[in-house]
Amino acid sequence: MITDLKDILSVNVRGMKRSAIRELLKFLGQPGLISFSGGFPAPQTFPVQELKEIIAEVMENEAAFALQYGATEGDTLLRTLLVNRYKAGGMDVSIDNMIITTASQQALDLIAKIFINRGDTVIMGLPSYLGGISAFNSYGASMIGIPMDDEGEDPNLMEDKLKELRSLGKKPKFIYLIPDFQNPAGVTMSEKRRLEIIALAHKYDVLILEDSPYRELRYEGEHQRTIYELDGTGQVILLGTFSKIFCPGFRIGWVVGHPDVLDKIVVAKQATDLCTPPFTQRIAARYIEKGYLDPKIKQIIEMYRGKRKVMLETLEEFMPKSFSWTKPEGGLFLMAKGPKEIDLNALLLDCIKNANVAYVAGDSFYCDGGGRNTCRLNFSYETEEKNREGCERLGKYLKTKV
Amino acid sequence: MITDLKDILSVNVRGMKRSAIRELLKFLGQPGLISFSGGFPAPQTFPVQELKEIIAEVMENEAAFALQYGATEGDTLLRTLLVNRYKAGGMDVSIDNMIITTASQQALDLIAKIFINRGDTVIMGLPSYLGGISAFNSYGASMIGIPMDDEGEDPNLMEDKLKELRSLGKKPKFIYLIPDFQNPAGVTMSEKRRLEIIALAHKYDVLILEDSPYRELRYEGEHQRTIYELDGTGQVILLGTFSKIFCPGFRIGWVVGHPDVLDKIVVAKQATDLCTPPFTQRIAARYIEKGYLDPKIKQIIEMYRGKRKVMLETLEEFMPKSFSWTKPEGGLFLMAKGPKEIDLNALLLDCIKNANVAYVAGDSFYCDGGGRNTCRLNFSYETEEKNREGCERLGKYLKTKV
Repeated sequence: MITDLKDILSVNVRGMKRSAIRELLKFLGQPGLISFSGGFPAPQTFPVQELKEIIAEVMENEAAFALQYGATEGDTLLRTLLVNRYKAGGMDVSIDNMIITTASQQALDLIAKIFINRGDTVIMGLPSYLGGISAFNSYGASMIGIPMDDEGEDPNLMEDKLKELRSLGKKPKFIYLIPDFQNPAGVTMSEKRRLEIIALAHKYDVLILEDSPYRELRYEGEHQRTIYELDGTGQVILLGTFSKIFCPGFRIGWVVGHPDVLDKIVVAKQATDLCTPPFTQRIAARYIEKGYLDPKIKQIIEMYRGKRKVMLETLEEFMPKSFSWTKPEGGLFLMAKGPKEIDLNALLLDCIKNANVAYVAGDSFYCDGGGRNTCRLNFSYETEEKNREGCERLGKYLKTKV
Repeated sequence: MITDLKDILSVNVRGMKRSAIRELLKFLGQPGLISFSGGFPAPQTFPVQELKEIIAEVMENEAAFALQYGATEGDTLLRTLLVNRYKAGGMDVSIDNMIITTASQQALDLIAKIFINRGDTVIMGLPSYLGGISAFNSYGASMIGIPMDDEGEDPNLMEDKLKELRSLGKKPKFIYLIPDFQNPAGVTMSEKRRLEIIALAHKYDVLILEDSPYRELRYEGEHQRTIYELDGTGQVILLGTFSKIFCPGFRIGWVVGHPDVLDKIVVAKQATDLCTPPFTQRIAARYIEKGYLDPKIKQIIEMYRGKRKVMLETLEEFMPKSFSWTKPEGGLFLMAKGPKEIDLNALLLDCIKNANVAYVAGDSFYCDGGGRNTCRLNFSYETEEKNREGCERLGKYLKTKV
């Protein structure tokens, strides 16, 4: 072995560390532990029967295609079906605006790769999605966090930052948003706020990266148009994925955007994995084609609506008065916030060991190192009964700490 | 849309271009075209029946696991089975030395990511594998090509370069080799040469990246021990993949290496795709477990042996006397070389249109821009009859150009 591996590591990887959430997964074998930490969909939602049928057909009829290398842009059938779904919802989009990626994480990595030079600025919310933070960090991005209110990132504070950068001769590479039931905060950006942010993006000539992994999983409130659609000028890159509405084990996502942007993503993707597995793409395409996706989404909505309700009710009953939490209109997560002095990161292992319940410490999601008094809670994975039991454990535990 | 997309692209992506091979694939719909251009395994080798059986069982017994997010390091069962295969071949390796990647291309991307700062040096052969070149290029690597002879990269010329770099206070991040039936050159590095290169690596304290996508597809000659095994000190990172011995549509590869190196790859992989699809990994694992892989490899060897034979015989019969070509002991490719003045890159489209046969222009594989008088020919994809017909077309066409 060479004398010192550390010496030859790239600058970018020196700044990278393992995801707190994924590392947490290793503690989760503890008997009886109730875990609100993963972003896992409930296994009961996996469409096992339909998949058995579809896979048998794919293997019967199109194995030579499905098992071979595929186009870097993705399976044309899948791209077409996804485009049609967006069109049916009113969006103006064609196949030239659509490519497939190996889940959204790859999209985040490729977009970071094509835009970020070390030291470049990215604007995001406080908090924001950890997968985005780690992808941008892996290219040495300098991240500026914008505080959020009930409607999303604060546009005035965002404009302050854009002005400040402009005065220094700088411009962020893009504004990164998760506007639908944000992971982790649970906040949904109102249409009014979306238009305000779009106006800022136009005024300061900045791209918007809109990450929307589960906008269809809405339990209450009104459907919001995507920032992509509201913009209409190609200044938005929109990400989607099957991980939460179909299954994550296939690792299939997509990017909607201006052809010039997609072209660069494709060039970068060629050097990254040649192509997303055609096998899983074709299965996903046939699944949509057979009309299974919409009923599945409805089923997931009903299941998670119930789980969310139980979590919210039990938090209400047991959490300390000094805690507040979001009541997300959809998605898989909510965020709880305690008094300023409580450190939920420091308490996590103790909570797992002594209260037998796990959360994700919120500071992982704050690019400025803040948020130590917050935690993310997932309601989709455990059963309603476990959600109830786990929130009771958590509330009682936290009462001993405030 | 923002005013000028070009302005905000990263430095690294400006240096990237689409793979010549993949772009070529778009011309290949021409009726009657015989293509020696892809690196595609023959669809007749795909284990369709066994896969149908295995997938049905996986869906029956372990769908909740296979369809869910998985560990970034990969499926423990698959890692264990791969480790056992290496051990059965005499290699000293444990599960701590093994991780799964989304095919070898991802491994190349991640290894480039963790080591290469813009301007860092990588040493490779002339020619070398395009996927490696494009991955390293995407991080701004400066690539130094070492001419090859019948046994591989020339160790004296390599040492000259290492000395030159040392005198400038520099060291390459690694030496990139494809020692078994190299894609594209078809050359196999002898054991003697492997030991010479290892000695250089130790002397100059440099890692070796050993990319070996199909070392089991050997048609003649003696099995060579991997550079990883011959080194034995953890100074080698060894890549493997299922793409050529199972099927590429699953996109499953692996990395064998020192735990400290794998640890960094895993950190980088987390930010890149979270995990390789557990679904396809588990299917591959069950396939190996049921003992299907070795008979499959034998079947592939017999099929490709015949195809290779036909290609070599027909080239002998029809190629211009001023051309030479490699006679690879295994793998999927050979390389033909013409007189210095012929430009096979410039002739390619004309050859496709007028001779109805395609190759890959060899200059894509030369990091120094050379090799314009070379081309890569794949013998695995077309039938024996098409290999014969295509080589006749190619030989007759080239005779009109020399």
